Amino acid sequence: MGSESTTEIMEATGRALCEYGYADLTMQRIADESSVTSAAIHYHFDTKEELLNAFLDDLLERFESRVACKARDPRERLSEFLDAVFEKPSSENDDFPVALMELKAQAPHHDLFRERFIELDDAVRDVVETAVRDGIEAGYFDEVDPETVAYVVATIINGSHVRMVALGEEPDRTREAVERTLARYIGWTPSRGVTA
Amino acid sequence: MGSESTTEIMEATGRALCEYGYADLTMQRIADESSVTSAAIHYHFDTKEELLNAFLDDLLERFESRVACKARDPRERLSEFLDAVFEKPSSENDDFPVALMELKAQAPHHDLFRERFIELDDAVRDVVETAVRDGIEAGYFDEVDPETVAYVVATIINGSHVRMVALGEEPDRTREAVERTLARYIGWTPSRGVTA
Repeated sequence: MGSESTTEIMEATGRALCEYGYADLTMQRIADESSVTSAAIHYHFDTKEELLNAFLDDLLERFESRVACKARDPRERLSEFLDAVFEKPSSENDDFPVALMELKAQAPHHDLFRERFIELDDAVRDVVETAVRDGIEAGYFDEVDPETVAYVVATIINGSHVRMVALGEEPDRTREAVERTLARYIGWTPSRGVTA
Repeated sequence: MGSESTTEIMEATGRALCEYGYADLTMQRIADESSVTSAAIHYHFDTKEELLNAFLDDLLERFESRVACKARDPRERLSEFLDAVFEKPSSENDDFPVALMELKAQAPHHDLFRERFIELDDAVRDVVETAVRDGIEAGYFDEVDPETVAYVVATIINGSHVRMVALGEEPDRTREAVERTLARYIGWTPSRGVTA
């Protein structure tokens, strides 16, 4: 199976997950969303768990390439990170945050999912921690423990995800809370205009 | 049905939810966890959704009576609130955060659940906002918008819940993050010793 098919299966998995939810997701339904046969999917992924593990891995890769920006200015890096995290899902991916929350709720029953979510969290905190450390060195930000800031920002982002799903809240509201909290910690507020 | 039976049904619902999860929860399984018959449960709750709605309502009431402390000192009130929120679940309720996360993931499909979660969030933010406002008036805390602080604290608590479920993280770590963030906003850190 070429990387083109893998990409197609991953995209089909995302669509099927949004449409049917975790409990009703089947290999057949994923096949129906793609031009790949159910047998071909089964050939590469023994179980639904393995397929979803690959899906989360793919999500991590996409996150990393999305935030792996070339900006040398740590202020710009933080702004671009917030743009990526608080991007409004497109109308066809409207249910993606819900599907992802279902997978998070499954993590206690699936070690593989938990490992992927831990990796994703590490990646998120790493982006913030590095940008904060670089910003302090460059004299842009107040002296503060970068690890603490990264942890607080990551946790508020986790909270934003729940609030979006459980309360139907717009991510913009949390973005504002993250910006105010960053201001309290590092004495600097990312401007939404930086990358616009 | 007396309030005793209602209490019993609510407790049985909690146990069954922890044991079977949302998807496999049935009236029969709840009956099996209690001395109330499945027919009696059906008589009072037409659907699983109605029963879980009552369960969430009960959760809100218990939260409110837990935090409705008489402490007049707003610092003590904040500390007691954090004690209540970051209390480690007892070993028999170990799976409760997971069950609750499943219900949150169901909120987009069930308006009643969403309404209850919004009420619960309002209650959480109200406790923090009032304590912060009173603390500012009493000169204990720095001047800051109490609504913003309450929103940030609530969102970090939401994030803590996800991290506990998805990453298996201990709530103590988030408690520390909340305390540091409070220190940044109001210039005061709740001491864990206040209520000990």
